[in-house]
Amino acid sequence: MNIHQLLQDLQEPGSSKIVLLVADGLGGLPLEPGGKTELETARTPNLDACVRDGVCGLSIPVLPGITPGSGPGHLGLFGYDPLEYRIGRGILEALGINFQVGPRDVAVRGNFCTVDSAGLISGRAARPSNERCQAMCQKLRQIKVSGVDIFVEPVREHRFVAVFRGDDLGDAVNDTDPQQVGHKPLEAKGEDGPSRKTAGIINQFLAEAGRILKNDAPTNMATLRGFSRYPAIATMEDIYGVKPVCIAVYPMYKGLARLVGMDIAEAGTSLGQQVDHLAKVWFLHYKYTDSTGEDGNFAAKVDMIERLDAEIPRIRELNPDVLIVTGDHSTPSKLKSHSWHPVPTLLRASTCRFDGVKEFGESACLRGGLGQFPAKYLMALALAHAGRLGKFGA
Amino acid sequence: MNIHQLLQDLQEPGSSKIVLLVADGLGGLPLEPGGKTELETARTPNLDACVRDGVCGLSIPVLPGITPGSGPGHLGLFGYDPLEYRIGRGILEALGINFQVGPRDVAVRGNFCTVDSAGLISGRAARPSNERCQAMCQKLRQIKVSGVDIFVEPVREHRFVAVFRGDDLGDAVNDTDPQQVGHKPLEAKGEDGPSRKTAGIINQFLAEAGRILKNDAPTNMATLRGFSRYPAIATMEDIYGVKPVCIAVYPMYKGLARLVGMDIAEAGTSLGQQVDHLAKVWFLHYKYTDSTGEDGNFAAKVDMIERLDAEIPRIRELNPDVLIVTGDHSTPSKLKSHSWHPVPTLLRASTCRFDGVKEFGESACLRGGLGQFPAKYLMALALAHAGRLGKFGA
Repeated sequence: MNIHQLLQDLQEPGSSKIVLLVADGLGGLPLEPGGKTELETARTPNLDACVRDGVCGLSIPVLPGITPGSGPGHLGLFGYDPLEYRIGRGILEALGINFQVGPRDVAVRGNFCTVDSAGLISGRAARPSNERCQAMCQKLRQIKVSGVDIFVEPVREHRFVAVFRGDDLGDAVNDTDPQQVGHKPLEAKGEDGPSRKTAGIINQFLAEAGRILKNDAPTNMATLRGFSRYPAIATMEDIYGVKPVCIAVYPMYKGLARLVGMDIAEAGTSLGQQVDHLAKVWFLHYKYTDSTGEDGNFAAKVDMIERLDAEIPRIRELNPDVLIVTGDHSTPSKLKSHSWHPVPTLLRASTCRFDGVKEFGESACLRGGLGQFPAKYLMALALAHAGRLGKFGA
Repeated sequence: MNIHQLLQDLQEPGSSKIVLLVADGLGGLPLEPGGKTELETARTPNLDACVRDGVCGLSIPVLPGITPGSGPGHLGLFGYDPLEYRIGRGILEALGINFQVGPRDVAVRGNFCTVDSAGLISGRAARPSNERCQAMCQKLRQIKVSGVDIFVEPVREHRFVAVFRGDDLGDAVNDTDPQQVGHKPLEAKGEDGPSRKTAGIINQFLAEAGRILKNDAPTNMATLRGFSRYPAIATMEDIYGVKPVCIAVYPMYKGLARLVGMDIAEAGTSLGQQVDHLAKVWFLHYKYTDSTGEDGNFAAKVDMIERLDAEIPRIRELNPDVLIVTGDHSTPSKLKSHSWHPVPTLLRASTCRFDGVKEFGESACLRGGLGQFPAKYLMALALAHAGRLGKFGA
């Protein structure tokens, strides 16, 4: 019996509220041996208070040593085993611009690029304006290939999304981006029947794109990468009996939330009374702990953590039955990238067994009552502490 | 390779003795943030001494956040993954009254109820005496349905167990209890061939029950729920090469023990020399840590833990090579119910790697050498410390 079936069987109605606050890339590293991480450096009296009233630990996003992208990182937090539920980059990108992908779709990320007269790629189109991106996409929308509907949507600058909608399409298709200048775009090839069908469509599409964009240097060609089909995924409402609402600024996180059936509240919405009535579970995504980490800016990440801490009292005023603060992965400024390090996690509820930990930080969480646990179990813990799971067996 | 195959391959003969002492619902919660749990409040010098000589940790009965019933809780401790080995409600109820179910049996829980002249259920039979329950069961034993032997056994008040013994029976049969008054009992329907056969038998049985009980209001009808077949389960002797003996007071725990092939010693038996010669593995079940927790009586649970502690010297006098004290789940008095919180566990053996923990309690066990571990691995740990497992691979 898998855990989704189990939770579906055990779900119980209730009016309890759960807040899942995800500080993207929350976990960090000290710059020097024995030093403090960003989180340990930040002054976080409000998060520390939550830890004292609750229980903490370290979540392992995928497996020990595995560094997740945002997709697997969030799927784990939502209770979907990231190794079982794979979401391709194309679908993620489409979700990120609010494009409503569906089960007959193969989505792919597109880049406008520059080719010379021999058709060799001389470079990524150097940051065209968003308006130009839009105009180029408008041109590509003229392309018709029999058997599929084609959607071309601008992302920004040189980036766009293409979605191919039709029957029996596959996504085992190679990227057409050769990943280096001085080469022609690669021909698309499929690894199986449906994917060969897709590859044929792609090659027609790109040949036509080359003709249409011919006189539009530096955006006179396009490459595609990250072919992916829409994943079959049960909603959180189906599995847990809760209907979560997502409050996020960046489109990709809204897209991930939509994929698991969340409603999307406008990010500008205050965390006030109206939200209180909207939902029993909120997923709040806070991006800036990750972006400052990716920039390698230790002090800025500390600052972003302190700003997050300052918002905690407003969230507590809403009286959630369960408040969780965690990240989808670590992003140590020292590494300037996502990392595999377990993620500090706190869970505050009246049903916690206290662990004596006094502050929120990587070292302190090592001694926490949640131990080191797979992120995919976090939703079960949240629901249990919210009184939303019945007993398994007699 | 699954763990049962592995342990079967690695089992080694020996004369070492293992005691698995299960204090039902042992784990708890403090009443106030920062306070002590029942176990931490109890004075437990003997358990503390075991912890100092051994190793401790916290067992996770099923998965993080999942609250187990007694069935899954004990199966885990016996080394059976509770998600893989499911025991239906009917079988558990039959085990609970000491009915010897077997592989040709489908068991189901019965409730005597009251129907009006139109056959609509007007309510559960309001707590009939146990004598009346017995008399009604006696009446139902007259019912004959061709192809099966039928056993009807009283539980108490309005509850009874029915067991249908025959070939090719299935248990994918709906409950006949409509779960609300003002409705007729539901017709039994089977989801597959064997279950349709069972459903036909059930409908004949219930029609006859209605006729026989017609004049016995308020116990003038019965509903059935929780159809379940006897599970196919390898014995502990098969898997581990040991023949455990169960010492328990409550029938359900004896039944669970019998299910995995344990011998049942009479609960009144002293823990003396004769037991020493009886068995290599004992499973001792202590109920009262759970029942006091279910009552929400913190002080009484503390008292029951102290009484358990007082028995530890007698158990140690028997010189078990491995002594384990754990629970099948937590039952915090604060929640008055089973819970998902990990269970304090100690293992004392001469082969322990000591962890420096000085007392037996939830917080102390967080720092124990066993860490937080799935309960289903406890038997392997027990056998290993008892010198009963060989090396895996060369």
